[in-house]
Amino acid sequence: MAFTLGSRLKLTLFGASHGELVGAILDGLPSGILIDKENMQKWLDLRRPAQSDITTQRKEQDLPEIVSGIVNGHTDGGPVTVIIRNTDAISNHYSDIKDNPRPGHADLTSFLKYGEYRNYAGGGFFSGRMTAPIVATGSICTDILSRNGILVNAWISSIGNIRTDKTSGSIFEAYGFKTRMPDNEADSKAHSYIRNLQSDGDSVGGIISVSVDKIPPGIGEPFFDSIESVFSHAIFSIPAVKGIEFGDGFAMSTMKGSEVQDRIQFRNNTFITTSNHNGGILGGISNGMPITLRVAVKPTSSIRKEVETVDLHTHEPVTLKIRGRHDPCIAIRALPVVQTMVSYCLLDIIMSSGNPVLISRIFNGNSKDAS
Amino acid sequence: MAFTLGSRLKLTLFGASHGELVGAILDGLPSGILIDKENMQKWLDLRRPAQSDITTQRKEQDLPEIVSGIVNGHTDGGPVTVIIRNTDAISNHYSDIKDNPRPGHADLTSFLKYGEYRNYAGGGFFSGRMTAPIVATGSICTDILSRNGILVNAWISSIGNIRTDKTSGSIFEAYGFKTRMPDNEADSKAHSYIRNLQSDGDSVGGIISVSVDKIPPGIGEPFFDSIESVFSHAIFSIPAVKGIEFGDGFAMSTMKGSEVQDRIQFRNNTFITTSNHNGGILGGISNGMPITLRVAVKPTSSIRKEVETVDLHTHEPVTLKIRGRHDPCIAIRALPVVQTMVSYCLLDIIMSSGNPVLISRIFNGNSKDAS
Amino acid sequence: MAFTLGSRLKLTLFGASHGELVGAILDGLPSGILIDKENMQKWLDLRRPAQSDITTQRKEQDLPEIVSGIVNGHTDGGPVTVIIRNTDAISNHYSDIKDNPRPGHADLTSFLKYGEYRNYAGGGFFSGRMTAPIVATGSICTDILSRNGILVNAWISSIGNIRTDKTSGSIFEAYGFKTRMPDNEADSKAHSYIRNLQSDGDSVGGIISVSVDKIPPGIGEPFFDSIESVFSHAIFSIPAVKGIEFGDGFAMSTMKGSEVQDRIQFRNNTFITTSNHNGGILGGISNGMPITLRVAVKPTSSIRKEVETVDLHTHEPVTLKIRGRHDPCIAIRALPVVQTMVSYCLLDIIMSSGNPVLISRIFNGNSKDAS
Amino acid sequence: MAFTLGSRLKLTLFGASHGELVGAILDGLPSGILIDKENMQKWLDLRRPAQSDITTQRKEQDLPEIVSGIVNGHTDGGPVTVIIRNTDAISNHYSDIKDNPRPGHADLTSFLKYGEYRNYAGGGFFSGRMTAPIVATGSICTDILSRNGILVNAWISSIGNIRTDKTSGSIFEAYGFKTRMPDNEADSKAHSYIRNLQSDGDSVGGIISVSVDKIPPGIGEPFFDSIESVFSHAIFSIPAVKGIEFGDGFAMSTMKGSEVQDRIQFRNNTFITTSNHNGGILGGISNGMPITLRVAVKPTSSIRKEVETVDLHTHEPVTLKIRGRHDPCIAIRALPVVQTMVSYCLLDIIMSSGNPVLISRIFNGNSKDAS
Repeated sequence: MAFTLGSRLKLTLFGASHGELVGAILDGLPSGILIDKENMQKWLDLRRPAQSDITTQRKEQDLPEIVSGIVNGHTDGGPVTVIIRNTDAISNHYSDIKDNPRPGHADLTSFLKYGEYRNYAGGGFFSGRMTAPIVATGSICTDILSRNGILVNAWISSIGNIRTDKTSGSIFEAYGFKTRMPDNEADSKAHSYIRNLQSDGDSVGGIISVSVDKIPPGIGEPFFDSIESVFSHAIFSIPAVKGIEFGDGFAMSTMKGSEVQDRIQFRNNTFITTSNHNGGILGGISNGMPITLRVAVKPTSSIRKEVETVDLHTHEPVTLKIRGRHDPCIAIRALPVVQTMVSYCLLDIIMSSGNPVLISRIFNGNSKDAS
Repeated sequence: MAFTLGSRLKLTLFGASHGELVGAILDGLPSGILIDKENMQKWLDLRRPAQSDITTQRKEQDLPEIVSGIVNGHTDGGPVTVIIRNTDAISNHYSDIKDNPRPGHADLTSFLKYGEYRNYAGGGFFSGRMTAPIVATGSICTDILSRNGILVNAWISSIGNIRTDKTSGSIFEAYGFKTRMPDNEADSKAHSYIRNLQSDGDSVGGIISVSVDKIPPGIGEPFFDSIESVFSHAIFSIPAVKGIEFGDGFAMSTMKGSEVQDRIQFRNNTFITTSNHNGGILGGISNGMPITLRVAVKPTSSIRKEVETVDLHTHEPVTLKIRGRHDPCIAIRALPVVQTMVSYCLLDIIMSSGNPVLISRIFNGNSKDAS
Repeated sequence: MAFTLGSRLKLTLFGASHGELVGAILDGLPSGILIDKENMQKWLDLRRPAQSDITTQRKEQDLPEIVSGIVNGHTDGGPVTVIIRNTDAISNHYSDIKDNPRPGHADLTSFLKYGEYRNYAGGGFFSGRMTAPIVATGSICTDILSRNGILVNAWISSIGNIRTDKTSGSIFEAYGFKTRMPDNEADSKAHSYIRNLQSDGDSVGGIISVSVDKIPPGIGEPFFDSIESVFSHAIFSIPAVKGIEFGDGFAMSTMKGSEVQDRIQFRNNTFITTSNHNGGILGGISNGMPITLRVAVKPTSSIRKEVETVDLHTHEPVTLKIRGRHDPCIAIRALPVVQTMVSYCLLDIIMSSGNPVLISRIFNGNSKDAS
Repeated sequence: MAFTLGSRLKLTLFGASHGELVGAILDGLPSGILIDKENMQKWLDLRRPAQSDITTQRKEQDLPEIVSGIVNGHTDGGPVTVIIRNTDAISNHYSDIKDNPRPGHADLTSFLKYGEYRNYAGGGFFSGRMTAPIVATGSICTDILSRNGILVNAWISSIGNIRTDKTSGSIFEAYGFKTRMPDNEADSKAHSYIRNLQSDGDSVGGIISVSVDKIPPGIGEPFFDSIESVFSHAIFSIPAVKGIEFGDGFAMSTMKGSEVQDRIQFRNNTFITTSNHNGGILGGISNGMPITLRVAVKPTSSIRKEVETVDLHTHEPVTLKIRGRHDPCIAIRALPVVQTMVSYCLLDIIMSSGNPVLISRIFNGNSKDAS
């Protein structure tokens, strides 16, 4: 269904951009897991609008309230519900778009599907604002994995045509860079580029790279619950994502079989491959090498330039000047969303594996005493 | 779960590569839908091994038997079960690989997950052979959509570095070309290239392009059941797929917002966009423009060259010469799998929409009299 | 999963008895359905504590806040979220039970499953208080069905050994009686009986009867989504329910085939049966006759008498005097829960049927103009 | 969906009564579980027609073929598929009923839902014959539980008004009695009664009792995945079941709270209750006491007496003499279906619990060496 995801660990979203609140429910965690509210806030701050000169200036504090599922700072085994109140929704900016759909947004498709009673203010439940509670609940999953040494690293590897081959060696490293490209030169270049686009009222796309280290071998399922299937299902639900590839992805379509063989060896008591063209997944299942993926994010559709569109009722052409406050490169704020979403998916996959050794390991060291 | 997919229309796979049979169940169709067994056979023939000089020579007839769900040539409302017997499985070719995992295959991950009792012969239930029943049941969905004018066109747009911009204008057009590239020049070039790789015992990857025409506007769901989510979940379950993009996909990550605006107009009684960078989907929902996607397929992992690997039990390095009969470009045989899988997903999305007008329309004209 | 139910129309619960709030999300309704907040309040009032002299005196106002899913008083197609704040939770009454599980409650099983971090106050997420948001969201379903003439009637048919054969001819008729037995004599007798039990600090069980009139024929599914399966799954999740039977139910186990034949005739343009031993369902599917079921509710486990139990940590016997405010006959307050839950299940079944005529009919007449 | 059940362990049915075969897929078992084909046959024989003088004389051998999921007699981690061929289907007996629906059967509802293309022969996919593959796959679950000492005992506790209070102390004990009532006197009385009904061409109902011993405490979930919810969902899908109660069930509706208190004590290193009115389940979760339930089975609807019904097309009354071979007391053959279905549900609940200690324990001792 549209707003519930997952197999053993369910994630349910609710709320809307310009309503009273947005929220998420994480159902399926065992009891006794330490919830680190400071870390949750930290992750929300990384996604928050108005963090820097190259993000939108909508001013949301994004303070999470955990209204159920916690006893003495630990999960109680029931649904963990997080709500985040909307405090800076300026709905009148959106009255323009009621009848004049913005290109690149869900305005037209929302009208086509829901008709007159659609929730259009601020994009309603199509809004990127719905990803705030994903980050809040996903941060819980990130913490659980991190306590086990499973690190979901992510960074921006390209903005427009500015690219870097550098990678992030820790979960938060990329956030030390304004553009989240973990490379001083590329970061500085991309920052200037974005500032210029901002002045122009334009925007640009980017690519988010993810590498999950220390992943247990043998998780995931064949066919319909392959790691790629589960990850892509979740990630394509994030607004503005238009492509996903694993390992060498699209580049593999141009290569020969002899060029992409990940040869298998046994070293330091474990199976490894001497290269990782397949991104740590074969037959839908992890082989213990890092899981690598790349996510294509389109340029923010809302730009300050005038745009021709149409009136939904008269069908006459109109010119629309989009007001509101927008991100010149939404990939930057999508980064923590992808990162925490991957954590959520991974934890669901581990829990769904039914592998008792693995499940036991993942939830050990999560209690108060152990932390 | 691993072998069941879908929301309103469930697809369940069973069997294994070198067992007695492979099969699929399609559960959820209303009664009275005409089943075209000749078309089912035609689709299976397009996926079948040994069709031409550039596909594997394993000789399977792939004759589908519909063992339930049909009364007088029409669906009876119960589960439609198709089985396909395995007739040319040569298991002794695979004794080599029992202890020596092939790179790029699921041999190692299968061992890591399932241990000694894994099904290794011919890749077991990880085998591409499992896609035969997907094609058989998916062909039913293709027929239902086609009877409504919804056309799931697909073709190969690149093999290695040989590309074409030509597209297929009908469901079967690409199959008139040996390499499925609907372009005489590219086809001929790619055919020679593949023949050479074959002599070398090597293989190559490719890209499958899909364009769904005459798609009803307003189908799909926001967030977790977006069209992209549902499609990618299903397509990444097909062996050898490593990437998916919608519309301009990864290229959008390099572009400016002002360059990718799909402007909205009203023409011939319907909303259209003047370009289709977004591939017919916004906010997870169709806008009525063609749904376009591209699927990256890796080169066949089994090549005839010797390869170093490891013994699963002694952990010593070994040299493996992979026997068996393999495809030099598996993208060619993956094409009808992707095409029928997209049809299946689309029909499930339409049925799950709950839109009575659309559901009514899609199943009209499917009865005997109407055909 | 524990807190999400349903196929096409998902119901998700969150919150806990003595936390900040309880809530529910109804996801899957089309846009444009009129939400009648007054009716929602009316249903909540029927379930509310402290309605009369024979219900618990916990004083909750049970004011529903619809925090998402509504635009101009109609559904917007997104998740409808209702929260109800807990205002009269007296947690200190429950400190006694932290280590001393009450018999008949989930205190021990909660400890066995969740351990030290369980949510014990007021029964946590096992509490009957979780049914308030079920009633709130279920009332929306009741309204939709009622606008189509589908009437989910329910009443109490027995309390202890006091029984009535009278039935309720309308949705709300039973609520005109203090004990919800629609029979002046039985009502008065049962009322006195309960008052006496109350003085004794004791409680009693009862049976809830449901009859759904004007049900469309041909809904439901064979086997695993039979009407009985869907209803019983939902109803057994309501605290204190211990049995369910359809039609003549357990009585049929004592009868001969010749005694329970529901003979088929065609009258007034429709198929009917001359009796209804099978309760309107055959093969899991409705035949158009009223769907009838009976639900056994056990006596409230919390009684004011002293009870021997055990200390969870020392394992020593202890004597517990249960404080708190409790219902002498919980069946009375369970009635609207069962009634609205049946409405929810029925609407999900209709929506899941995929029958376009039926879906179209059920949502017509639900818009503003029509109301 | 209609033909797929379960959470972590999926059960999918296919086929139809008078088609080529019936079958089931069990997906989700780990690899390495010993499959005892002799036990599977034994269970099928207990359900098989023509076992004795009081079961139908349809002669099916019910030989299970496991066509996937097994390597060297153990599960391989893929879907376990069992098919059973139909060998004695006499379709011409059913031509009578094509237009003349039998009372008490799904003939009319099948027509109402599926129309002209319904599968009517022998009841199609509504037939009790669909339960043969449930028994075959369920027997695997029974074996897994038994190897862990978890015993799903079941027997017939009443036939018509003949009752017994005796219980079955082992899984198979009841099958030593012709009527499955584990009580020589009741068995003999019931046998005569059924023989007389048979001569009359009549039938009778009965009650199946189940007691699951040595159940691990703390399994199951609150609310929507309560043990009662999961069990009742599955059991109500079995044809002819009309009621289910847990513990004292309907009797509790007549009792006082003070009469049904299951007092908690700590004995022999575990929590126990001094009585078991609640049938081993509180808050949806097991407390370690035996799980007890009773299932009401209606009398076989097909009786040899003439019956008035109606023509589906002319709507005229007709007299129908039902031919075919039928059971005078279908509860007898439903017993192993209920028993193996409970085993399946229980194993799914344990696997879904995510409790690593429990999952680990349940699958230990299931490998070849251990057996």
